[in-house]
Amino acid sequence: MNNRYVVIMAGGRGERFWPQSRLRRPKHLLPIVGDEPMLVQTVNRLDGLVPVENVFVVTNSEQRDAVLGTCPNLLPERVVGEPEGRDTAAAVALSALLVQRENTSAAFAMLPADHVIEDNAGFRAILDSAFEAAETQDLLVTIGIRPTEPATGYGYIQRGEPCGEPGGRTLYNAVRFVEKPDRETAESYVASGDYLWNAGMFVWRSEVILKAIASHAPDLASGINELDDAWTEEASLDEAMQSVYPSLTKISVDFAVMEKADNVAVLESAFDWDDVGEWPAIERHFPADEMGNVFRGAGLALESTGNVTYAEDGHMVALLGVDDLIVVQSPDATLVCRKDMAQGIKELTRKVVEAKDGEKLV
Amino acid sequence: MNNRYVVIMAGGRGERFWPQSRLRRPKHLLPIVGDEPMLVQTVNRLDGLVPVENVFVVTNSEQRDAVLGTCPNLLPERVVGEPEGRDTAAAVALSALLVQRENTSAAFAMLPADHVIEDNAGFRAILDSAFEAAETQDLLVTIGIRPTEPATGYGYIQRGEPCGEPGGRTLYNAVRFVEKPDRETAESYVASGDYLWNAGMFVWRSEVILKAIASHAPDLASGINELDDAWTEEASLDEAMQSVYPSLTKISVDFAVMEKADNVAVLESAFDWDDVGEWPAIERHFPADEMGNVFRGAGLALESTGNVTYAEDGHMVALLGVDDLIVVQSPDATLVCRKDMAQGIKELTRKVVEAKDGEKLV
Repeated sequence: MNNRYVVIMAGGRGERFWPQSRLRRPKHLLPIVGDEPMLVQTVNRLDGLVPVENVFVVTNSEQRDAVLGTCPNLLPERVVGEPEGRDTAAAVALSALLVQRENTSAAFAMLPADHVIEDNAGFRAILDSAFEAAETQDLLVTIGIRPTEPATGYGYIQRGEPCGEPGGRTLYNAVRFVEKPDRETAESYVASGDYLWNAGMFVWRSEVILKAIASHAPDLASGINELDDAWTEEASLDEAMQSVYPSLTKISVDFAVMEKADNVAVLESAFDWDDVGEWPAIERHFPADEMGNVFRGAGLALESTGNVTYAEDGHMVALLGVDDLIVVQSPDATLVCRKDMAQGIKELTRKVVEAKDGEKLV
Repeated sequence: MNNRYVVIMAGGRGERFWPQSRLRRPKHLLPIVGDEPMLVQTVNRLDGLVPVENVFVVTNSEQRDAVLGTCPNLLPERVVGEPEGRDTAAAVALSALLVQRENTSAAFAMLPADHVIEDNAGFRAILDSAFEAAETQDLLVTIGIRPTEPATGYGYIQRGEPCGEPGGRTLYNAVRFVEKPDRETAESYVASGDYLWNAGMFVWRSEVILKAIASHAPDLASGINELDDAWTEEASLDEAMQSVYPSLTKISVDFAVMEKADNVAVLESAFDWDDVGEWPAIERHFPADEMGNVFRGAGLALESTGNVTYAEDGHMVALLGVDDLIVVQSPDATLVCRKDMAQGIKELTRKVVEAKDGEKLV
């Protein structure tokens, strides 16, 4: 178990959970669902699978202090700040370098910081099997989620033939990675039974993913080699990051590697999963009143249906005669948004920044 | 001028402006429209008409400290707390007693604490004429507002023949006081030109109004005599109020006196007036953006129309894809209400009181 590592990707800017989320307090540092910040839940979920000393967090440098403040049990040297976001392929390459420097033969899991998983034991069991597969085969192992609806907001992984039995579970070859489909395509995926949601969780050995990057994203590979060279006894990782990281190729790991590599495998999850990508998604995680209103924190509704409210402790949101709204309170900003327009919150935050005294609200 | 008094009626509970207004911080103590609390604006509006030493405020005893805190230039002994609200006729009778104890022959004006009047000079000019009428004739002088629309939310005063020329203005006999009419009736009133809105502003001498109360509301008259008897050198007004006031007849002055008396006169106002009875009314007093949204305090809207927001200093309300809402922020409660359902806020506050920890929010 000490030969296993986890790298948590905590780079989000959290615009979609404004006004609770801010540039320096993104979604993963908030208790959007559950009593603790999402990142704390993600770290605690690893308990028994990987020791906390083996947990890295890749975040952006502006959030690094907040991450350490929120998760004080993380080792400070394991919390790495990106001077600027360069998408997931760069974060994956950086992670492989970090782990390889510790242990050349170790496998590591890359996990998002801010997803909701309630079945922690089920999660650890699947990850344990994924580690076993990555440790024994030269595979890029992904976790696929059995779709519960024809979602158009997720990428899908098509599985093919069985290629292993790690921990007694069937591992499948991944035939292909596909980006967010339209509704009709999503429906055909779900009907086929062969498509799983891509939850952005990967397990592999450093040498295997670095080799795949070298094959499919050579520019990024040479950038990471440059970072490796710059990170010396004289120059700290932080200094090397400052000088090299901003020039790394900006591309997603799905597009740069997963869609191209032929050694991708997928293990089907047996745990609940929700990426809770925007405010309306929290609705799924709290009980509704008889009119279909969901209150996170104190809330009350009269002649109102289908609303979702979020209030901090000591604050109440009261609704009268309104339907299908998102209402989010924070001490210095309040959001009222039609539930089916939550995808516009990012644009709204850009308008807030431009408003008088608006910069400190984002 | 020192022979003139004003009694400001500041007894409202302010439920309709929740969550800004509270039991101990009703509408008249808030800057709902304008930069200062409505009561402060009402007191300042008298400057040059009646010295502040001659201004009484009748409020409820729970709000008395807040009134003095908000208007520190009022004389503390002139701010009288009702142990419980007994409607306007009792407040009028009490006011007549207060003024009569100071000056048996003085006229006084009774004015609401929380109305919006921007033309302060115009207001003082009309009041000056009303005082002149009340000082020289045994009349119950009311101020009538020229209707700007067939409102169904106000009572009306029908004027009859001229009965005086105080300050060069024509005073009319009031033929009758009518309660809130239906739409059709209101339209006929406005078309006739003879009906004015009853703004609840009266000017009279103590002896004249007390005589009218004795004639038309003898129970109340004997109650006020009892209060007069109980208020002695040994027993303070406050003690007398505690023992007698709660037993006074509870009835409105319009119903008890104005609709019955035959010495009622009406002077038409020449100033703007708005009683701003509920949140949607503030819309009339602030500029709207190009989509018809009105922001009191910091606010911002995207794909939203016709909303009214209220935010305290340092807070922003941001709207996305919503129409015709009232959104009111306060530090411990937020209201989101359909604009045409604001009359339900009073009921909402009753539900808030019943909610866990809700009592301190009302």
